[in-house]
Amino acid sequence: MSDLTSLFWPSSIAMIGASDDASTLRGRILDFLIQRNYQGKLHLVSTNHAQIRGIRTVGTVREIIGTIDVVLVAVRADLTEAVLRECASAGAKFAVCFSSGFAEEGDAGRVRQDTLASIARETGMRICGPNTAGYFNVTGMVPVTFTRSADASRGSPEGQVRRGPVAIVSQSGGLGFALQHRGAVQHGLGFSGIVSTGNEADLESLDFVEHLVGDADTRVILLLLEALKNPARLREVAARAAAGGKPIIAAKFGRTTAGARAADSHAARLTGSDTGYDAAFRRYGILRVEDEEEMCDLAAAFSRSPLPAGNRVGIITTSGGAGVWMADACELAGLEVPLLDDATQKALSAFVPSYGSTVNPVDVTAQVSINPVGAVEGQVSPLVGTLSVLAQCDGLDAIVLVANLSDGDVLLREKAALAAFVSKLKKPFLVYTHAQASRESLELLWSIGLSCFGSTRRVARTLNMMLAYSRMLADGVAAGTAAQMQRGEARPAPPAKIGELCEYQAKSLLRDYGFVTPREMLARNASEAVAAAQSIGGAVALKIQSPQIQHKTDADGVMLGLAAPDRVRAAFDELMALARRLDANADIHGVLVQEMAAPGLEMAIGVVRDPDFGPMMMVGLGGIHIEVLKDVAWELLPVSKPVALAMLKRLRGYALLEGVRGQPARDVDALAELMEKLSEFVEHCGDLISEVDLNPVFVHEQGKGVQIIDAMILGSDREPR
Amino acid sequence: MSDLTSLFWPSSIAMIGASDDASTLRGRILDFLIQRNYQGKLHLVSTNHAQIRGIRTVGTVREIIGTIDVVLVAVRADLTEAVLRECASAGAKFAVCFSSGFAEEGDAGRVRQDTLASIARETGMRICGPNTAGYFNVTGMVPVTFTRSADASRGSPEGQVRRGPVAIVSQSGGLGFALQHRGAVQHGLGFSGIVSTGNEADLESLDFVEHLVGDADTRVILLLLEALKNPARLREVAARAAAGGKPIIAAKFGRTTAGARAADSHAARLTGSDTGYDAAFRRYGILRVEDEEEMCDLAAAFSRSPLPAGNRVGIITTSGGAGVWMADACELAGLEVPLLDDATQKALSAFVPSYGSTVNPVDVTAQVSINPVGAVEGQVSPLVGTLSVLAQCDGLDAIVLVANLSDGDVLLREKAALAAFVSKLKKPFLVYTHAQASRESLELLWSIGLSCFGSTRRVARTLNMMLAYSRMLADGVAAGTAAQMQRGEARPAPPAKIGELCEYQAKSLLRDYGFVTPREMLARNASEAVAAAQSIGGAVALKIQSPQIQHKTDADGVMLGLAAPDRVRAAFDELMALARRLDANADIHGVLVQEMAAPGLEMAIGVVRDPDFGPMMMVGLGGIHIEVLKDVAWELLPVSKPVALAMLKRLRGYALLEGVRGQPARDVDALAELMEKLSEFVEHCGDLISEVDLNPVFVHEQGKGVQIIDAMILGSDREPR
Repeated sequence: MSDLTSLFWPSSIAMIGASDDASTLRGRILDFLIQRNYQGKLHLVSTNHAQIRGIRTVGTVREIIGTIDVVLVAVRADLTEAVLRECASAGAKFAVCFSSGFAEEGDAGRVRQDTLASIARETGMRICGPNTAGYFNVTGMVPVTFTRSADASRGSPEGQVRRGPVAIVSQSGGLGFALQHRGAVQHGLGFSGIVSTGNEADLESLDFVEHLVGDADTRVILLLLEALKNPARLREVAARAAAGGKPIIAAKFGRTTAGARAADSHAARLTGSDTGYDAAFRRYGILRVEDEEEMCDLAAAFSRSPLPAGNRVGIITTSGGAGVWMADACELAGLEVPLLDDATQKALSAFVPSYGSTVNPVDVTAQVSINPVGAVEGQVSPLVGTLSVLAQCDGLDAIVLVANLSDGDVLLREKAALAAFVSKLKKPFLVYTHAQASRESLELLWSIGLSCFGSTRRVARTLNMMLAYSRMLADGVAAGTAAQMQRGEARPAPPAKIGELCEYQAKSLLRDYGFVTPREMLARNASEAVAAAQSIGGAVALKIQSPQIQHKTDADGVMLGLAAPDRVRAAFDELMALARRLDANADIHGVLVQEMAAPGLEMAIGVVRDPDFGPMMMVGLGGIHIEVLKDVAWELLPVSKPVALAMLKRLRGYALLEGVRGQPARDVDALAELMEKLSEFVEHCGDLISEVDLNPVFVHEQGKGVQIIDAMILGSDREPR
Repeated sequence: MSDLTSLFWPSSIAMIGASDDASTLRGRILDFLIQRNYQGKLHLVSTNHAQIRGIRTVGTVREIIGTIDVVLVAVRADLTEAVLRECASAGAKFAVCFSSGFAEEGDAGRVRQDTLASIARETGMRICGPNTAGYFNVTGMVPVTFTRSADASRGSPEGQVRRGPVAIVSQSGGLGFALQHRGAVQHGLGFSGIVSTGNEADLESLDFVEHLVGDADTRVILLLLEALKNPARLREVAARAAAGGKPIIAAKFGRTTAGARAADSHAARLTGSDTGYDAAFRRYGILRVEDEEEMCDLAAAFSRSPLPAGNRVGIITTSGGAGVWMADACELAGLEVPLLDDATQKALSAFVPSYGSTVNPVDVTAQVSINPVGAVEGQVSPLVGTLSVLAQCDGLDAIVLVANLSDGDVLLREKAALAAFVSKLKKPFLVYTHAQASRESLELLWSIGLSCFGSTRRVARTLNMMLAYSRMLADGVAAGTAAQMQRGEARPAPPAKIGELCEYQAKSLLRDYGFVTPREMLARNASEAVAAAQSIGGAVALKIQSPQIQHKTDADGVMLGLAAPDRVRAAFDELMALARRLDANADIHGVLVQEMAAPGLEMAIGVVRDPDFGPMMMVGLGGIHIEVLKDVAWELLPVSKPVALAMLKRLRGYALLEGVRGQPARDVDALAELMEKLSEFVEHCGDLISEVDLNPVFVHEQGKGVQIIDAMILGSDREPR
């Protein structure tokens, strides 16, 4: 783990080519540092001016006496290498490289970028960028950036950067700093810092996230990503964040064709597989958001509110109609809006007029805003009275207030009582306004630790994400799942090679590791096939075996339900002839003779190797469920039995495993155990296996287990076709 | 159709119990009228004061000389009837009844409300309310309401009501007026009027919508609904709106258990079936929204922008990262972000720097905001230059600008050129800002006819809804679908009665109307069963026939694949015994002997009668698709063949009909024709049929038709169980 303290809290900053022209990029950076009253030592390097903004300059970085914590470089791409080498030899610890013209501009730029990486490795001077918009340490008020969001002289007062617990790490400088502005105006968010990671020649997003996890001033981390430079590090960084109870809220761009094309064009980033990122985020407890509004909503909620223990929401409303809308939004999102118990309703009736309602939503009606309250000293207002009853109701996990906050009057009268109420509250309490909230209302809410949301859907979604995070923490997220793996008996050493296996070889390998397969034998000629069928007994299936014919069913390479010896013999000959017709050069191992399995519910289980996150398991109901309905669940390995069960429950068609329409319940336990066993097997074999496909697996009735009907295993060491 | 002109444009208003105390409800209404300088005659009725706010009062409404267009009533519920009768006999044309204490307060209140309805019917005086927050004719600046949104002395300048083309009809007064405020602040929306419909004792939501469709100042209608009083009127009103090109954007509340409970509790409204409303909205071309943000977004887009002709979006961005995010959002929403053709890219390259991009998204980079433009007189700026190229590109149907509008500088420089560009544009052009937009930016955009959106997801969703509306208009919405029905040959008169039919009777009825069913005969004893089987030939199915055993398969009342006479005989006896065991009093008609159908893809087609919208057809793939995956499509009758095909295409599993995994393509044409025929049959029978279930229907390969394997028909005239 890199210590980035000197980068963000520099005791000295050197600027190469300093300028006093605030319309230039370098001039602006300097201007912002002076504007914010930077307290460390400022070294200005200039060959043109002896003095800039009242500070004496030096001619080269080598003339600087004393330590250089951070050097700022914004020179032409082709000059960057020389400048950075000079800075490194002058002893600079960190360089922030704003220059563009690197990987985002093609092959020559990529070579230049690789050189920057080498300089960092060779000299130990760590580099942020190139093509970065810089950073802003808000806690320390150190702006090292040219973006106008950092310009205190520009923009509205509400958009100005304020201190607080939210940090932003962004691969897009424009988006990262814009998100600060949006969060400040919409939710009054305060920040600890914002970092634009640029092209990440050296320091990468996860270095910054890791630093922020250890930063006492940061409680929520927003991560805007196109692609991780080192995806393999995500697990450890995320586990550390989870251990600290600091949620990472991530947006991943470049998910679609057009998005990926754009990411490649502006930052030369290949955006990886969205399935892989999605599985990794879920597994590592990272909250993935849909859009920037949701990101700000979650930042507000997580930085201000306790987490919910469950999904039961109490709604208090000043408008019947708006209460209905909120109740709909919560239930449609999977939250509960339960009827309140009699004691609670009775307690509420002291505060709710006859034309209101004490069921849930609790309709206190517009009287709350029309009638002045607190006229009698010490009297509890209907609003705070109602809230207190809901706070004490054990049947509720969260409270939502629906009110028209288009002016500040409603809340102003209640401020002191509300603040006292909020300070003692142990449940999330979110405020929603159906009109546009006034600035006074918003600032009042923020000042007492509440957040206000502008849509019913966003309230429901925020509560759901808080609940998801709360459950992830309770489950121990990533760390726990691995610990729960049931380690099997002693296993043989991984095979030396795998290559491209036929079904019979794949099954044989699986049997070596304790998997149970149907009884089956390879027949190399018709007589062997007949003998095998007789030894197995009953009807058998025959399947052609050749590494070149992996999709046997599609190729008509499977014949089912053969019993009589002459039919087995004829089938053998037919399959061999077929194989030769399909591929004259195919390496035909023979025909697999297999017992006919009792019918079961068809599932498919697969493992593929994601280029970023390594092996991932997929499970789905067989046939159309996977291919037409795309009803599959993914998880990164390891997949323990509890994780496997959770995957199965995510399937839309899960009810089929539970048994519907007179069908029996299936052996879900055995299925989950098979998935765990497969996970262990693939991990045991290390990098050797690139793909496994158990398809179909028959899942029998409860207690009757599962059967691997067909299996395919591809080694990472197979010959390219 | 009611003429509501005098209600909204009253030449005289009488207020019962007028008050000069602006802290009371009646005082506020008067205050707002005076505040807005109401130009008509104001009659104040008061027994306490000879003069109020400088106007001489009268003692009773009968003393008023001249016409009374609108009388305002806000008295205690138990006094309302007498007051309204007096107003009616004084010749008032309309009453706005603010009083509460009616259906929302239980049975006694409901009786009072029914009395109000009678007064309207008997006297011809039309009533808005009771329990209404009133209306605000914004075009005419006539506020007849007590809601503070109408109070010009309160709230921020941005939230004030402005004139414009958007109208709001809301069953919730709180929500309706709050939506105006939200729309004004977020999108600078101007309004023609806002109506709170209250409990709708007399005038109902659709009366107001109908009025607004005919109102020249209204171009977009927002409808906030819990339940329609007369759902049957929706079709005609919606068709008139579509003919006028005026979109109706509707939110329907009370969709969930908690939501419906709340709607019942605050306005005594039963919220109907959400499936029915959803089907009705779709069929009648009404755009349904998710939340209030989407409602305002659509109001802004529809009131300002031309409609798109297709789904191809061109994105121009000043931030690479934000462009990636927008491209993702568009593609995830089903829009296309196509690569631009060579000529367009070449034309763009004049405006895009080397580190930008001319593919789509077009990245003009932050230079647009940093470098001053127009320094050279008459030179086209990169922003407007790029936009003009995209506007001329035939491969794009809409343009989205992504920019950081946290201050107004970027756009201010370009205002004149942008305005000229927008005035000539024939495609939608939506603006998105990744930071929070400044007021100056927003007002500049609004002043030149553009709207600004705060999330990528909302931009994509808005474009999608505009496209959907554009396509609905092109398809002729509701009117067209009925016209395209293929009227069949002459049909027998509808049956006199239906009751509860057994399968064989249902099929016989269907055959009368030209439906083709498998060969089948009812057998009343075992010998008849054997004879029937022999006459049909081959294997047959036997099915128990009793109106009390409608779910034969679940009851084991079906036996398949019987050929030998003794097996048919045994099966007959077994089924009869089973039926008697199941229900000793069952009316057992016998056993249906049916030819074994060739296997086909199983579908289910049903018709049920929605209490609000009448008969609705459901279609889905058989078995788990319906029961587990809930993969069904609904439409109101009539279902023509094109509508049927559209329903099938909405199914997630539609690919199964097209043929996947080596399965043949199915006879989709024959299936759609069957659906159309069923629609005609049910409509032909009028109200007589309450439910039809064709399940399964086997769909054979292309050209080989469909077969109704089982059928159930329930008459509306059946005995209740």
